[in-house]
Amino acid sequence: MESPLSTFNLTLFQNERAKKIVPAGANLFETGDPGVYMFVLISGEARIIVNDIAVETAFPGAVIGEMAIIDGEPRSADVRCITDCIFAQIDRPRFEFLIRQHPDFALEVMKIMSERLRSTNKLL
Amino acid sequence: MESPLSTFNLTLFQNERAKKIVPAGANLFETGDPGVYMFVLISGEARIIVNDIAVETAFPGAVIGEMAIIDGEPRSADVRCITDCIFAQIDRPRFEFLIRQHPDFALEVMKIMSERLRSTNKLL
Repeated sequence: MESPLSTFNLTLFQNERAKKIVPAGANLFETGDPGVYMFVLISGEARIIVNDIAVETAFPGAVIGEMAIIDGEPRSADVRCITDCIFAQIDRPRFEFLIRQHPDFALEVMKIMSERLRSTNKLL
Repeated sequence: MESPLSTFNLTLFQNERAKKIVPAGANLFETGDPGVYMFVLISGEARIIVNDIAVETAFPGAVIGEMAIIDGEPRSADVRCITDCIFAQIDRPRFEFLIRQHPDFALEVMKIMSERLRSTNKLL
């Protein structure tokens, strides 16, 4: 079961200097990987997979990997690129800067996490 | 399966004027209820129940009901008080104020949501 979730207005990230390019078929990261970055999908399409269940399809504007940057724990999902993908790559200092400078960014990340929790709860 | 999660330092909420008192055995709210408040458990113990599964036990400092205040959707869990409980009651304007004035509050709420997502993912 998959569901498209909220996406960010990309203008905040379009000029992000650190980018990660991942070809179709490859993984952005895998469950258990150490996680130091959050990503915002700039272009392409990717699938988020938890315990072999595709829980979400990510489209441009999708926030990915926010949990590891928040709590420092290893990745809790695989992210597989369906097409060639470009991601903006946000490290912890940049993440904290965005929260301090743009409280709406914090609210938006929370909204996305809330939707993830709701859609995961439905799978229980 | 239950797990105790992160709790807030209560000093930020001890003087919160709006409080809600719920006796042992009663529910703070139920799945499907409209949700306009977030709560911080000041004293007592409560259980969070999703689809009849006890997913979490809340102790003083626990944040409860943050999802509805973030996304305006109905409650996604029952919260049953095991003992008499006192909750600080936070409405949306107060929530936004806390995020703007205390970026660490935003990070802390995100950390709690992240832990919730991880512990729910484990139940899949």
